[in-house]
Amino acid sequence: MSAPTPPPERPRLPWDPPEHFEKRVPDGDSRERLVCGRCEFIHYQNPKVVAGAVCTWKDKILMAKRAIEPRKGFWTLPAGYMELGETTEQAAQREAKEEACADIEIDRLLAMYSVARIGQVQIMYRARLLNENVSPGIESEEVALVAWKDIPWDQLAFPTMVWALAHFHKSRGQKDFSAYSNPTGDLAKMWPPRKPQGL
Amino acid sequence: MSAPTPPPERPRLPWDPPEHFEKRVPDGDSRERLVCGRCEFIHYQNPKVVAGAVCTWKDKILMAKRAIEPRKGFWTLPAGYMELGETTEQAAQREAKEEACADIEIDRLLAMYSVARIGQVQIMYRARLLNENVSPGIESEEVALVAWKDIPWDQLAFPTMVWALAHFHKSRGQKDFSAYSNPTGDLAKMWPPRKPQGL
Repeated sequence: MSAPTPPPERPRLPWDPPEHFEKRVPDGDSRERLVCGRCEFIHYQNPKVVAGAVCTWKDKILMAKRAIEPRKGFWTLPAGYMELGETTEQAAQREAKEEACADIEIDRLLAMYSVARIGQVQIMYRARLLNENVSPGIESEEVALVAWKDIPWDQLAFPTMVWALAHFHKSRGQKDFSAYSNPTGDLAKMWPPRKPQGL
Repeated sequence: MSAPTPPPERPRLPWDPPEHFEKRVPDGDSRERLVCGRCEFIHYQNPKVVAGAVCTWKDKILMAKRAIEPRKGFWTLPAGYMELGETTEQAAQREAKEEACADIEIDRLLAMYSVARIGQVQIMYRARLLNENVSPGIESEEVALVAWKDIPWDQLAFPTMVWALAHFHKSRGQKDFSAYSNPTGDLAKMWPPRKPQGL
């Protein structure tokens, strides 16, 4: 059996600090932080929240083909960075609007995943589309309402999207269930993305 | 009836940017961000995650009296800012250790609250103490295992701690329940903190 493809190197991101920021433990702190060597500004870095949703219209799931890196050309569920001044529910609704021009109503919390390697907490809701008028937003090449049997497992953008779809499927018909968290076993190892066993 | 005390002004925080950062919409972005006027570093500000837990030993709840501002001298549940490289569960466990020298085991997600005004997502777990050896960490003046009838409602530090305690109480004995989110009605208005109606 050949070794699996390693996850892609984390690309340089717009919020990565410049070279003249240095690692130092600020007074009253217990951890190294990045401090601007010119003005002493302490650049605290904390995990970022990604909010999204598995949005359904009848029995179909809203998916979007990414028009931007990382993973341009791969399929995802509407999700993105939460902004200041909004709630997690509002962030998920805004992302559905921005990426798929979709109007959604939040049902309930489906899952919360920690992706420690890249400093993210991903919050995924179950949601209903209010109508079937969806179209690509600026970050999407294409959007589609996809039947379960047609999910393009090998073409999913991120392992957490495999997790969210699998957990959504398990949650069907359930009203009161504990929000899912990081899976274990086969489902934990979804790089590269593929259809999980038993689904 | 006199007007309620307004919430305290948000104090200047260590990660607040210096005066020479200016508001500007960076290329390829759609929102104003703070940009360093000297080196063009874009200071993206996103909501921060606070993780904590309602930790029980038999029927008592672990609480800590804050030794630091904001709300020094008031009582709280162990909770604090999530750091890079950890999961939300690990963050809640670390905070219980740091604030109350407590070893805990996570049961399940109790609640997730958005506090948009201060850019926080607060994630609260239900957890069990592994033993009753608790003592104040550096950020606490005092810790205690408190019976439900002895909760010092008027002395709680933050409205979200009232929410978490009320939701914990509702969740007693339940295994599968949807994680709670921001409350509505009387419970939404817990500044200043006090015992909610009907509890």
